[in-house]
Amino acid sequence: MPVGTQATVKAMSPAELLELDFHVILANTYHLHARPGDALIERCGGLHRFMDWPRAILTDSGGYQVFSLAKLRQVTAEGVAFQSPYDGSPTFLGPVEAMAIQRRLGSDIAMVFDECAPYPCSRDYACQAVERTLSWAAVCARQDRAPGQLVFGIVQGGVYADLRRECAERLAGIGFDGYAIGGVSVGEPDELILRGIADTAPWLPADRPRYLMGVGLLPQMAEAVALGVDMFDCVMPTRYARNGAALTRRGRYPVRAARYAEDLRPIEEGCGCYACRRFSRAYIRHLLNVDEILGVRLVTMHNLFRYAEYLREMRAAIAEGTFGAFLARVRADYRVIHEEHAEHEGKE
Amino acid sequence: MPVGTQATVKAMSPAELLELDFHVILANTYHLHARPGDALIERCGGLHRFMDWPRAILTDSGGYQVFSLAKLRQVTAEGVAFQSPYDGSPTFLGPVEAMAIQRRLGSDIAMVFDECAPYPCSRDYACQAVERTLSWAAVCARQDRAPGQLVFGIVQGGVYADLRRECAERLAGIGFDGYAIGGVSVGEPDELILRGIADTAPWLPADRPRYLMGVGLLPQMAEAVALGVDMFDCVMPTRYARNGAALTRRGRYPVRAARYAEDLRPIEEGCGCYACRRFSRAYIRHLLNVDEILGVRLVTMHNLFRYAEYLREMRAAIAEGTFGAFLARVRADYRVIHEEHAEHEGKE
Repeated sequence: MPVGTQATVKAMSPAELLELDFHVILANTYHLHARPGDALIERCGGLHRFMDWPRAILTDSGGYQVFSLAKLRQVTAEGVAFQSPYDGSPTFLGPVEAMAIQRRLGSDIAMVFDECAPYPCSRDYACQAVERTLSWAAVCARQDRAPGQLVFGIVQGGVYADLRRECAERLAGIGFDGYAIGGVSVGEPDELILRGIADTAPWLPADRPRYLMGVGLLPQMAEAVALGVDMFDCVMPTRYARNGAALTRRGRYPVRAARYAEDLRPIEEGCGCYACRRFSRAYIRHLLNVDEILGVRLVTMHNLFRYAEYLREMRAAIAEGTFGAFLARVRADYRVIHEEHAEHEGKE
Repeated sequence: MPVGTQATVKAMSPAELLELDFHVILANTYHLHARPGDALIERCGGLHRFMDWPRAILTDSGGYQVFSLAKLRQVTAEGVAFQSPYDGSPTFLGPVEAMAIQRRLGSDIAMVFDECAPYPCSRDYACQAVERTLSWAAVCARQDRAPGQLVFGIVQGGVYADLRRECAERLAGIGFDGYAIGGVSVGEPDELILRGIADTAPWLPADRPRYLMGVGLLPQMAEAVALGVDMFDCVMPTRYARNGAALTRRGRYPVRAARYAEDLRPIEEGCGCYACRRFSRAYIRHLLNVDEILGVRLVTMHNLFRYAEYLREMRAAIAEGTFGAFLARVRADYRVIHEEHAEHEGKE
């Protein structure tokens, strides 16, 4: 049973997200279609009103969920017939359906319905997935939109540089409001993620946002920005928090670990988030250990604060022309983290 | 496995509790003794600092947990030997130990270690429990305290009016900073709860706070105030919230119910809490249905807001000399609620 992003950023309230100054949140089209239903959300005045989010909402197309979660699927030119992972009922989702759902949700940015090929994947399969993605993208581009809604295309092509370039160029030929780099961070080694970005970004229009889907970790994001990426989405800060892992400038660590039982320092020294201003590792560790919701809330809050701050730092470095130095620092820190991590592991 | 109040009010942050303007919170001595340990909390600077709560903390004595949760217990003049419900290890808790733990926690109000007799319970057993409670109370009164810590005695006596009176008077003879009415709301019918209060309150010193333990529901609280009670503690607002039940002026209802699927009204119309100012029943129902933490957070926030407001209303009515009218209104509303509730049940 999948539990996706259900019209909220997990454990957070919209007021808290505004305070962290996030500008766009992502909602999962397929999960909302299944529960509570896009028709219901439309009758409730659309997703912004439903979840009380006054800023931008990006909806994914449901393609990723269909290809990663659904069993017994049958792919045709019109879309995908599959068994609902929620209740086993027969379901059909294609470019027409995906755009109609996103229109009803009333998101600000809709994503085209694409085929996200797995890793590893043969060149033949990747090629077919690119062709289907392009033909579906053309169908999506012709559909009606919610007022003011933007539509982004998605580049596929697996690990094959020429397929990625072709996909990017033909999507640009159709013409979208922005372009996403898809089919990365689907299980391949880290270096292939960066290669996939490098094989895609140069062929995307320079005057449109480039959105890297499903990435990433803090150092990955800096590398991606260096390769020309403008936007990200990632479950890491919230998912790690639910597992009790704090993300910091110096890497991540498990707050539950016995060595923090009496540690009076905040999750991250010098951090200005509510969790770090008011609570010790010892207290948060205790909350996590006894399954108190506040424990997950505080770590989630910290992790998102760290991400927001990191993104602000990158924007400032770009504006000041010092992004090269920023990246060098991130790379050096990341090496230190790897060494520290190994050291901690040895200790326990 | 018990999951008690673990150094937080479930799902809430201290900042949110301050905003609701609660002045005292309760922490469970026994649960904190078991995890993370009172010695650890003392080394972390005491419970106020540990959980970042700047106002008053009341700690129970652990007696209730020992008598309700522990198996294989053996009661002696010095206290109770029992098997820890956490890990089965042999544990001993008596008046000396309970006061030492509460001293280390550094609460503002410590409770004496008492024997809370179950319901039903024979007169003989209730009589023995009263004697033990009184002798333990005397021991507690002699123990060292944390700086400024107050100690409250607890009246037992089951459903036996003469035992309650005797217990109250002999406790007053020892002399405490406040007095609790214990051994009520332990499974007996509602009318016996009120009878227990009526059988106790008149014999307690008028110039000390009277604290009714483990009660209650909103109408019960008004009845208790009419009988002379000043303080309450209750898991209802947070526990009901975790089960998806909203508490309102017009009784409680399950927000998850299908009839609220497209209900755009707030949990309670006219309510000024964050949940009611910003979100619909439809949205909160969805969050609860997909197990999103935010759902429980919003219902908890509403329920606590309702309680805080109700307590303010009672205080204002007393100050204005209109408490009689307030109580009459509560009684009338409560009858209506019972009828409405029956009607809803019939509908579903």
